[in-house]
Parts: sequence; structure tokens; C-alpha cells
Amino acid sequence: MATRDALHFPATQAQQLDPYIALPSSPIPSKPFVTLTFATSLDSQLSLAPGVQTALSGPKSKAMTHYLRSKHDAILVGVGTAIADDPSLNCRMEGVGGYGGEGVVGQPRPVVVDPKGRWEFTAESKVMKLAKEGKGKPPWLVTRAVIDKEKRTLLESVGGKVFQMHSQSTSSVPWRDILEELARAGIQSIMVEGGGMVINNLLSVENFNLVDSVIVTIAPIWLGKGGVQVCPAARLEDGQRLPVGRLTDVKWVSLGEDVVLCGRPKGE
Amino acid sequence: MATRDALHFPATQAQQLDPYIALPSSPIPSKPFVTLTFATSLDSQLSLAPGVQTALSGPKSKAMTHYLRSKHDAILVGVGTAIADDPSLNCRMEGVGGYGGEGVVGQPRPVVVDPKGRWEFTAESKVMKLAKEGKGKPPWLVTRAVIDKEKRTLLESVGGKVFQMHSQSTSSVPWRDILEELARAGIQSIMVEGGGMVINNLLSVENFNLVDSVIVTIAPIWLGKGGVQVCPAARLEDGQRLPVGRLTDVKWVSLGEDVVLCGRPKGE
Ligand SMILES: NC(=O)c1ccc[n+]([C@@H]2O[C@H](COP(=O)([O-])OP(=O)(O)OC[C@H]3O[C@@H](n4cnc5c(N)ncnc54)[C@H](OP(=O)(O)O)[C@@H]3O)[C@@H](O)[C@H]2O)c1
Ligand SMILES: NC(=O)c1ccc[n+]([C@@H]2O[C@H](COP(=O)([O-])OP(=O)(O)OC[C@H]3O[C@@H](n4cnc5c(N)ncnc54)[C@H](OP(=O)(O)O)[C@@H]3O)[C@@H](O)[C@H]2O)c1
Repeated sequence: MATRDALHFPATQAQQLDPYIALPSSPIPSKPFVTLTFATSLDSQLSLAPGVQTALSGPKSKAMTHYLRSKHDAILVGVGTAIADDPSLNCRMEGVGGYGGEGVVGQPRPVVVDPKGRWEFTAESKVMKLAKEGKGKPPWLVTRAVIDKEKRTLLESVGGKVFQMHSQSTSSVPWRDILEELARAGIQSIMVEGGGMVINNLLSVENFNLVDSVIVTIAPIWLGKGGVQVCPAARLEDGQRLPVGRLTDVKWVSLGEDVVLCGRPKGE
Repeated sequence: MATRDALHFPATQAQQLDPYIALPSSPIPSKPFVTLTFATSLDSQLSLAPGVQTALSGPKSKAMTHYLRSKHDAILVGVGTAIADDPSLNCRMEGVGGYGGEGVVGQPRPVVVDPKGRWEFTAESKVMKLAKEGKGKPPWLVTRAVIDKEKRTLLESVGGKVFQMHSQSTSSVPWRDILEELARAGIQSIMVEGGGMVINNLLSVENFNLVDSVIVTIAPIWLGKGGVQVCPAARLEDGQRLPVGRLTDVKWVSLGEDVVLCGRPKGE
């Protein structure tokens, strides 16, 4: 039971976020409660470049992320993030399974959306190692591609699973289909953490209604042109540009030098 | 004395901003105290497109802007904003000159930086009309170009003035020169309000040290790709990208649904 590297998030701050995360039952039962969460610079960037780990937010913000992870059944990232960052996708809060708690109780399910099967994970990938060490749940891979036998066997050897999607589109899998598939597999709440393409896609006019809650950490820094930017596709109606999405029921919480924005997508 | 359209900003909120604006004397006497201030969306955009007035921040934020204007000797914008927005650049706070107060006491000096002399103002331009009506100070035009006699006469007829800059560069006038010229003309504090190019230029590594204070209002909205974006030029050192600028001594103040970020540029 390694509690050495466990994180702690103060209850007073947790209480401010709680109204924005994972209701006991999702408003749309066919899909999980979706919390979209990420950290940006003032110029709305996630990192200096794809694959360049960029220290944006402070240590308190890290503890917050792990608190949020502990409150969701699953964490989802796009394959770009899986490849660029080799992320852990587990929860290191004091008291959850692997960090003082029983088994993997309280650990979220790591989900990687990889339509074309581009993620070349190995036994050394962090998410695989953590699953093996009992410090995280085994990952799920959502894909439209045929995953070769070797990769599938490796994934299943740690308890992971391939979700084979059958999509009309040759380029992507509709979010609604992914979320419904995960709901059928028992996921009632999911935290989408990135990266840039996944976030921009969920913020777009077509998908924003699938999001239940948004939690964005903003750090007082400008990264400058050329990084991975959060900026959804433009919305055009009758040749006129309109704002893409607005939040309502907004709360701003200071967290060290950063701010955390909590809100809910505002319906039209 | 038209107080009908005058604005009011609560003292409790003003007190939170006061430490960030215009010290009695500038730390560098050869230039004014520079407050950089603007309002953006979450995707760091000032407007949906150049010249498209975009309602970003709420009414409280408007009152704040006018409070800040009342605390500075001058307001500066780039010619892009002057052309696109036909801005008023005056202060409509209750009690300042033209809004309940004497003469133009408390009104900031409007300054338009127009290196190539592109601004085709007329007697109907807002800033000209307000000067004539005694609701704002007459504008100053900072340029490198030769302003034709007719335009100069029109400007001078309302009490305005041309500042003729002699720059080595054929494309722009260095900020340091502009600020020193304004200091010589008696400006001890200046609020730079926009637009995109001016802001990005002042946030860049070369100029950020000229800025004393930054006040950014962020509205919980995404505008989507293609707007006027605040994102300074990348900073490259030894072929490596580095963050361009960081703020220190940071405060986040909620203002309606928006947040106001106050901070000071962090030296290297
Ligand atoms: N600051 C933060 O909070 C944070 C969090 C996470 C990641 N990041 C950063 O984000 C960067 C990675 O972002 P990224 O944009 O390269 O990758 P990404 O968003 O993680 O993954 C993009 C890929 O996901 C797949 N995908 C599946 N469904 C999709 C859909 N509906 N729409 C769009 N893509 C879909 C696509 O794969 P195919 O092209 O194969 O179809 C796409 O190329 C890294 O630098 C990482 O550090 C930052
Ligand atoms: N949300 C807000 O807070 C806010 C505030 C103000 C403006 N805005 C928006 O911003 C938009 C206008 O922005 P913009 O980028 O088009 O114009 P801008 O920044 O107002 O003006 C740019 C022009 O200023 C001149 N300039 C002088 N010195 C400069 C320097 N050192 N660096 C760069 N430019 C310098 C250049 O003129 P030459 O090219 O002729 O040399 C340049 O083209 C409008 O849509 C307006 O609504 C929003």
C-alpha cells in the first residue's frame, strides 16, 4: 500500500466543485454524465507543442485533478494524448485503491479513444504497468480498427478490453456512440481530459450538448503561438459567425495562482 | 451635465483592483505606468472577427473598464481598433468631467497609434464628437506618416494633436519610443486597451517588460476559430519553445459570470 506519493485535496475546496461533478444518475440514462476538464494557459493552450509536457498549473491543481478522477467511473483521452504523454490515467488520492485503499476501489477506468488503432502500447506503458501493479484499473481501448492479436492479448493480459465500434464514418466514431457503448458497459460518469482535438470536438456545436459539466483550470501564463490550442471549429449560421458555446451557472474558484472555472453548457 | 448615461463601479470591487493600477509615480520615470487591459473569451479571442463588435463580458465589466479609465492619464488603442470599432475612448463614470464633473477633469487622453496614417477620422468619429461636446479629451495621433493638412486641421480644430515619430524601422514604431514621447507630453499612466495586434505585440518577449500591470476580463464563452486572438509570437531559445510571459502577484476577482485577472509581468 504505497501512500507515499498519495495526494490530498482539501474538503473546503472539494465542496466548491462537488455540485459540478457526476450526479448520482445521469440526466440522459443512455449515456454517462460527462465532465470535460483540462488546464490551459491564458492563450488557451494545453501545451507548447504536441508531446511537450508543459507545466501550466500549480500543485494544488494536480490534487484537484486526482480528486475529480476519484469521483468518476472513467477517464477518457484521445490517442494523441496516449501517444504524446504516456499518461498514468489513474487516481493517486489518499485512500483510493492502490494508495491506502482496498483493491482498485475508487480507481477510474482509463479509456483511450483510438479510431485507427494507432496507439502502440507495450507492457511498459504507464497505464499498463499501473494496472499490473494494482494501482489503476486496466485500460479500455475504443476503436474502429482491427487490433492485431498480439496487442489485444497484451491488453487482455492485464485485464484490459477492446471495444470494437462499427461506424458509418470512415474518419471518426460519433461521440454519442462511444458514450452509449460505455454506458452499456456500466460507466455512469466519465471525465474527458484531452487532448486538444478531443476537447475541440466536444466543444463544437454538434457535440456540446453531450457535455454535462465543464471544469477548466487557467494558469496566468501565455505560451505563444504554435502550441496545442483549445479553440473549437467556427459556427456559421446564414453566413454569420456566432459564438460556439457558452457556460451557465458559472463559478470561479482561485487555486494557488490559477483559477478553476466550473460551469454547465448553456442550451440554446 | 449629462449624468443619465453615467456608470457606477462599487467601491468594494474597486479596492480589489486599486493595487494594480497607476502608482503615483512610475517605476521608470522616462515612461508612463502601463496597464494592459482587455476582455477575452475562453479561447482567448477579443472578437468574432475584426470590426465585429462582440458582446463578451457583462455590464459590471463595462463599469470596471470605465473605472480603470478614470484612473489613467491616457487610453491607447491601435489604428485597427480605431477603424473597426469607432471607439469612444472616454470615461463615463459618474462624477468625471462631462458626466457630472467639471470640464474634462478625470477624462483620460485618447491616443491612437497609427504608424502609416491609415485612420480616416471625420468630425463624426465618436472620439471627435465627444471632444467637441466636452465629454472627452481631444485625441492624440501617434504616427510615422505625413498626415495631410486637412486631417491635421480637423484634429487640431477640436484640440487634438499629431505626434510625429521618427523611426528607424519602416514598419513600426518601437513601443519604448512611443511611451517616452507620451511621458514627455505629461502622461504618467496609460491604459492600453487593444486591439489584437497591439496586445500581442506588448505581450511579446521584447516588449513585456514595458508593461507594469495586466488586467484581463475572461468571459465563460468559446467564440470558435477565426476571430481576433490574443496569442503572442512564440519564444524560441536554442531551438526550444519557452512560455512567452507569466504573471505574478496574481488575483482573480469574480465579476458577474466573468472573472477579472490582475497581475504583474514576472521578470526573468
Ligand atoms: N493541459 C491539459 O489539460 C492536457 C490534457 C490532455 C492532453 N494534453 C495535451 O494534448 C496534446 C495531445 O492532443 P492532441 O490533439 O494531439 O490529441 P488527442 O485529442 O488526445 O487525440 C486526438 C486523436 O483522437 C482520436 N479521436 C477519436 N475520436 C475523435 C473525435 N471524435 N474527434 C477528434 N479526435 C478523435 C483521433 O485519432 P485518429 O486521428 O487516429 O482518428 C485524433 O487524432 C498533448 O500535447 C498533451 O500533452 C493536455
Ligand atoms: N475585447 C476587447 O477588449 C477589445 C479591445 C480593443 C479592440 N478589440 C477588437 O480588436 C480588433 C482590432 O484589433 P486589430 O489587431 O485589428 O488592431 P489593433 O491592434 O487595434 O491595431 C493594429 C494596428 O496598429 C498599428 N500598430 C502601431 N504600433 C504597433 C505595434 N507596435 N505593433 C502592432 N501594431 C501596431 C498597426 O498599424 P499599421 O499596420 O498601419 O502599421 C497595426 O496594424 C477589433 O475587432 C476590436 O473590436 C477588442
